[in-house]
Amino acid sequence: MYVESRTRVRYKETDQMGIAHHSNYLVWFEIGRTDLCRAVGIPYAEIERRGYILVVTEISCRFRTPFRYDDEILIRTSVAEIASRAMRFSYELYDAEATDLRASGFSSHMWLDRESRRPVRGDGEVVAAFRPWADGC
Amino acid sequence: MYVESRTRVRYKETDQMGIAHHSNYLVWFEIGRTDLCRAVGIPYAEIERRGYILVVTEISCRFRTPFRYDDEILIRTSVAEIASRAMRFSYELYDAEATDLRASGFSSHMWLDRESRRPVRGDGEVVAAFRPWADGC
Amino acid sequence: MYVESRTRVRYKETDQMGIAHHSNYLVWFEIGRTDLCRAVGIPYAEIERRGYILVVTEISCRFRTPFRYDDEILIRTSVAEIASRAMRFSYELYDAEATDLRASGFSSHMWLDRESRRPVRGDGEVVAAFRPWADGC
Amino acid sequence: MYVESRTRVRYKETDQMGIAHHSNYLVWFEIGRTDLCRAVGIPYAEIERRGYILVVTEISCRFRTPFRYDDEILIRTSVAEIASRAMRFSYELYDAEATDLRASGFSSHMWLDRESRRPVRGDGEVVAAFRPWADGC
Repeated sequence: MYVESRTRVRYKETDQMGIAHHSNYLVWFEIGRTDLCRAVGIPYAEIERRGYILVVTEISCRFRTPFRYDDEILIRTSVAEIASRAMRFSYELYDAEATDLRASGFSSHMWLDRESRRPVRGDGEVVAAFRPWADGC
Repeated sequence: MYVESRTRVRYKETDQMGIAHHSNYLVWFEIGRTDLCRAVGIPYAEIERRGYILVVTEISCRFRTPFRYDDEILIRTSVAEIASRAMRFSYELYDAEATDLRASGFSSHMWLDRESRRPVRGDGEVVAAFRPWADGC
Repeated sequence: MYVESRTRVRYKETDQMGIAHHSNYLVWFEIGRTDLCRAVGIPYAEIERRGYILVVTEISCRFRTPFRYDDEILIRTSVAEIASRAMRFSYELYDAEATDLRASGFSSHMWLDRESRRPVRGDGEVVAAFRPWADGC
Repeated sequence: MYVESRTRVRYKETDQMGIAHHSNYLVWFEIGRTDLCRAVGIPYAEIERRGYILVVTEISCRFRTPFRYDDEILIRTSVAEIASRAMRFSYELYDAEATDLRASGFSSHMWLDRESRRPVRGDGEVVAAFRPWADGC
């Protein structure tokens, strides 16, 4: 179960190799994460308003085929793992026609209290909303 | 009266023209602004701790000669105008030897209360500290 | 006569003031420029393939109301001036409903030969295609 | 055997969590890689001039303690693996005093011919120069 997002490679995102710089992939992952939260029914901005932040604890990405300026990118985002204190999202980046898997990766996160910045259990309603999206559930 | 900062063009900052993307110049201006605040004796982080933010209201930049990957950039930052509610910084970007003026610009700012986000007079001590740095004073 | 583009503020584009960092506005201008070229019938990538680059010589932006994370931005891009060797684009950034003008600016450009990096007259077909888009023409 | 680089967190690099956005870590890794090439005696720009590019095939990063605006970052970069067609760099990010390991990661790369964009053996002289820097050699 995944959510799809689309964006285009911005000129700013290219580098002198003539391809999109690899650090942008993490930003595209984040677009997918934002859209997944929206699809789940709890926009990420709402999560922060409830007093939580979902910080990144680990990132991994494998790059297969580069994207070029103005290419449309199809982002597929899913919930790979969910627990009360942590989550993992996984991502696949395709060409516009979804025929060529160009990169894949994951991001691991944990919940912090927004004020104290201490690890906490995630908001119950939020965690429950994500749970049905976890693979294999 | 100006403050000098130095940085190098990061690979990430290049684009497919093979030069540094123009949006980075605003980030380099910001490095200069940060170092000027430090030189004035009031690091910008301290200004925010005092309950103020200095938001950007206008930006202008003229680009003469491009910077390339790994070039050293010399940033000269000065206070162009200062009033109780607003400030303007000006910037010159040179090659490492300061012989070639490659870009110049300014940024205009106003003081906001950090909580209410309303325009306010800047912190008296901060404004007084910047005043001697204004050109022609 | 303008072209409209839409994008959303990415989490990466926010800063610790809790608003979109001002340097991103130049990147949003560039999205508008890319879409205007596409609307004109000559995608910018095609312009570079023809052996030209359109470098930025000046940028200006006035900031009125900030954008926040996940806000939709409406970009209106038009051709402000066109000559054989130079162009100026102008930009207006609105909220999603186009009721609140949040920022406006322009970018000036000149044509360079992609190989020699010397100023040249723009490709005749390209300049002719942009001409009807210039304001007041 | 590692190379040390230092940089400061730019205001642009913060996000609305009040910490440096995680995607910047890949850019800081790249600063380390650039400085390691320089230390090895072959600036990366020289590698591209010889007709090669060193593309990223995989990235991984673990985040422990965040960096904040204006924090000084100490980057330690080393060569983790080297072969004729591929390389892996590893990175450790510390606070200015090198007492707190805040993040660590690696980047895997392969050599491409700059024109054909096909995988090739790296330039012999370049690979030989990196070899003594590989851990455990």
